[in-house]
Amino acid sequence: MKRRGVKADMRGRGFSDRVSLEAATEWVDAHSAALAAEEIELRAAAGRVLAVDVASEWAIPAADRAGVDGYAVRSADTVGAGDYNPLELALVKADELPAAAAVSISSGDALPRGADAILPFELARTKVATVGATSNATLPAAGAGKTLEVFGAVAEGFGVERKGQQVQAGTQLLERGRELLPQDIGLLAALGVERIQVARRPRVGILVGEPKRCGESGGQGDANGPMLRALVERDGGSVVKVVALASERHGFAIAYEADLMLVAGRSGMGWDDIAALTISEVGEMAMHGVALRPGGSAGMGAVGTAPVVLLPGDPLECLCAYEMLAGRMIRRLGGRAPELPFAVVEAEVGRKIVSMIGVVDVCRVRLEDGKIEAIGTAESGGLASTVRADGFVVIPAPLEGYAPGARVSVYVYGGGTRKEQ
Amino acid sequence: MKRRGVKADMRGRGFSDRVSLEAATEWVDAHSAALAAEEIELRAAAGRVLAVDVASEWAIPAADRAGVDGYAVRSADTVGAGDYNPLELALVKADELPAAAAVSISSGDALPRGADAILPFELARTKVATVGATSNATLPAAGAGKTLEVFGAVAEGFGVERKGQQVQAGTQLLERGRELLPQDIGLLAALGVERIQVARRPRVGILVGEPKRCGESGGQGDANGPMLRALVERDGGSVVKVVALASERHGFAIAYEADLMLVAGRSGMGWDDIAALTISEVGEMAMHGVALRPGGSAGMGAVGTAPVVLLPGDPLECLCAYEMLAGRMIRRLGGRAPELPFAVVEAEVGRKIVSMIGVVDVCRVRLEDGKIEAIGTAESGGLASTVRADGFVVIPAPLEGYAPGARVSVYVYGGGTRKEQ
Repeated sequence: MKRRGVKADMRGRGFSDRVSLEAATEWVDAHSAALAAEEIELRAAAGRVLAVDVASEWAIPAADRAGVDGYAVRSADTVGAGDYNPLELALVKADELPAAAAVSISSGDALPRGADAILPFELARTKVATVGATSNATLPAAGAGKTLEVFGAVAEGFGVERKGQQVQAGTQLLERGRELLPQDIGLLAALGVERIQVARRPRVGILVGEPKRCGESGGQGDANGPMLRALVERDGGSVVKVVALASERHGFAIAYEADLMLVAGRSGMGWDDIAALTISEVGEMAMHGVALRPGGSAGMGAVGTAPVVLLPGDPLECLCAYEMLAGRMIRRLGGRAPELPFAVVEAEVGRKIVSMIGVVDVCRVRLEDGKIEAIGTAESGGLASTVRADGFVVIPAPLEGYAPGARVSVYVYGGGTRKEQ
Repeated sequence: MKRRGVKADMRGRGFSDRVSLEAATEWVDAHSAALAAEEIELRAAAGRVLAVDVASEWAIPAADRAGVDGYAVRSADTVGAGDYNPLELALVKADELPAAAAVSISSGDALPRGADAILPFELARTKVATVGATSNATLPAAGAGKTLEVFGAVAEGFGVERKGQQVQAGTQLLERGRELLPQDIGLLAALGVERIQVARRPRVGILVGEPKRCGESGGQGDANGPMLRALVERDGGSVVKVVALASERHGFAIAYEADLMLVAGRSGMGWDDIAALTISEVGEMAMHGVALRPGGSAGMGAVGTAPVVLLPGDPLECLCAYEMLAGRMIRRLGGRAPELPFAVVEAEVGRKIVSMIGVVDVCRVRLEDGKIEAIGTAESGGLASTVRADGFVVIPAPLEGYAPGARVSVYVYGGGTRKEQ
């Protein structure tokens, strides 16, 4: 692991030389190579990341078969049939079609030898041969031993699905790195796959500082532990443990069970901000302070072989630093696309949005009728601002904000479903 | 439950009077009122649907507090301070700020009484009082018992976060029906919430017909069971059991443990298509045959108190009928938004797309550079066509397709993340 040394003790200082978000992201990418694969049961694999390319061992269909319900016929036997010129075929049960005959067939059944088309029900009517009466109302289960009246011609191949028409044997079906969709699971199951190689879920250890309390009322519990657990699981990680961060070092032992550690809280410049100091005692800090708002006191380092992302204790700052740095790391470790896991919509800036030059601002916004409005200012509003927001805009470091009417990309919270109009 | 009677035995017929997708959707909506709530642990609630409105019992912050790290001061004491006119304040430890003094404070700490602003580290430097030397390099942990040189003035309220600034006590925070995001979990945890009322997950029983086999090669396993399990879980349901559908009726006993039953296979018009017949023997069929491609042999009914959605056995048809009907039912039962759970992007039709008038066509498409191209035709391509597709277009019944250049909405498979450009 390559690291840049940093002064461990930032307490009582400003972050005079924060690293750019770009540099922090490069560090994240350099320390999050995809983990090894594991084999799991296919039926548990939805949403997991395929660790191998998958080609089809078999053709689908495995042989020529009926693509619709109806009667298997020789197309030549139907030539000339019409509403005013019904032709008659013998309705038989057979694996090999006799001349001038038809076999009742269901969609998906193999074609009897000699048949080359399917006559749909709409073009035929059974006729009880011995009585001569026609009927399409009550029929014995197989309809065999009767005569079929044919009211239209079918061309060769009509209603027939050819061997390999959906998938040829040997075809590349799914690529390594794909997040398995329900239909992928279905297709693999059809092909007889029972177990599959997927990327291992990153194991994430979480250390959480005691939340700051002020005043005497309740409602000052720890937001970061439960929030980070939900975020890690959203990004495909599994949480090893959530441990309270004490000033002692022993909580860091979970680094040895984890692929990544998150430490939330005590990351700033106050006198009680001992997290970076402790990390540099039990491991190493590589960077501390990122040109990002909220989330500027984030840092990166390592304990043992596990990279550590240090997150601010303020829940809003913690969330933003997670989204911009830690989440990316977890997605990459798990073989997923590194990008923010939100739908992106283009929108127009309503009221002017102000940003700080030299810092990437994560601006929570409301989105209505294709227009956005900022909620609170860069660092105010707390976690509640992200709960009230429809999503957020990432304002690049060189900009001082957006003027009304500017077109911007909005990352939309919550799965990306658009309401029907 | 209101039902329209239908002829149970469609075998050997065409679906001459399929119901419209609109009518089928109305039936779905009429039989899927949200289930009762259940109380669960907050830490397991991410992604679940809130069953109650939540207001904040407390204010955030609970008292005026420091919003940044620095020194709590009386703003009046800093008036006139500048780089060339440093003022001196006594650096003390106190709950009540003496005159001409400062207290070291960390972001989130309560303000000492008397303080009305936070002086950031950047505007101050400690000075060891007895020696007179200035230093900002190595400092005792609290910095108290010294003098603080102040190099700038701060206005009243600077760096202070007021009681209730983020959330006022009694504020409505989250609405019933919301799918809980990680930040919602964090905010609720901060407010001391430990258990929460969420909509119960719909319990879904799945009956799956034996897949049709043809030819002698392998790779003809059941796609529908594993695929439907993944779909039901994606839509927030929990699978009671996946049972093989035999001609006997006993598999239907799981209807009595389920909020909804899915029956996949044996739904068509062939002689072996006994599903609708069996449902009408053990319960009732309300509709059979929907003007939808793929998925036209779908149907709806009930067994006991559980609604039943009958799905085609062909995996592509099964998937489409699930997406357009069953998935909506599960989302509604679970209190979720009924719409298709995909990101929607607008795109331009590349090559002409043909559709059947009077039938809603679900057309799988590839999406590249904002242009779409159909994969296969309406009913060909099998499940593999949905694996190769980036998403699908729903073509309304009155249209005969889309001409090149038409603008259409594409439902994008796979979570709605857009690749970075």
